[in-house]
Amino acid sequence: MGIFIASDHAGFELKEYLKNHFDLLDLGTHSAESCDYPVFAKKLIVRLKEGDRGVLICGTGIGMSIAANRFQNVRAALCFNEEMAVLSRQHNDANVIVLGARMISKEVARKCVEKFLATDFEGGRHQRRLDLIADGCSNTD
Amino acid sequence: MGIFIASDHAGFELKEYLKNHFDLLDLGTHSAESCDYPVFAKKLIVRLKEGDRGVLICGTGIGMSIAANRFQNVRAALCFNEEMAVLSRQHNDANVIVLGARMISKEVARKCVEKFLATDFEGGRHQRRLDLIADGCSNTD
Repeated sequence: MGIFIASDHAGFELKEYLKNHFDLLDLGTHSAESCDYPVFAKKLIVRLKEGDRGVLICGTGIGMSIAANRFQNVRAALCFNEEMAVLSRQHNDANVIVLGARMISKEVARKCVEKFLATDFEGGRHQRRLDLIADGCSNTD
Repeated sequence: MGIFIASDHAGFELKEYLKNHFDLLDLGTHSAESCDYPVFAKKLIVRLKEGDRGVLICGTGIGMSIAANRFQNVRAALCFNEEMAVLSRQHNDANVIVLGARMISKEVARKCVEKFLATDFEGGRHQRRLDLIADGCSNTD
């Protein structure tokens, strides 16, 4: 399992911090100079194979979350506490965790990544819901 | 501008609460009985026209956020404080706000929706980033 990380300038410092705590493949950005988060979302997504995990960071996490979830092979979960990180795996089988560097502390971010990497998907009714998403949310109208 | 709201069972109570504070078009669910969030994400998304806004609620907000952002006409922002709600509009031109009913208080949720409805998009460099998302995040690899 490869674990990739990417961020924009707002997430650069948190990305460097997390690299000290986990074995992460860094796909940039490589400085605090202003850049465009969608470019770094895509740099990570194109590397994600079945079973891999990703960590995406921007200021709030919102932009990365929108960009990443455009891709059918991605289930990106914006998390702001450990409980969400656990549930993102148990219920959503998230393969990408998204963090808002300007919204949570480095410590909370570290704990979120820890839970995200350690928790398994529960399947069952949650798989049915993921199937609905993969199927365009079904024909309900 | 139409303002639509939808939730799964976990978000039902918060949805009812928000309806007391804003003029919202309720697309269900209509009870606390277990249901599948992607179905209700889609019920809302198919109604969203240019200029409309949406509020989607599930337990954490993660599932709704994944499902909604699959659609090209949606920029769905999972928010857990007022600052994010403001930034979701200023930077991401979000047309859907996503709330995690089991993660934030009703009061915080209400304030998030208030800011979400009252804040304008800033354009500029943020528009360039939205264009990158719309364009599949461009060819960077």
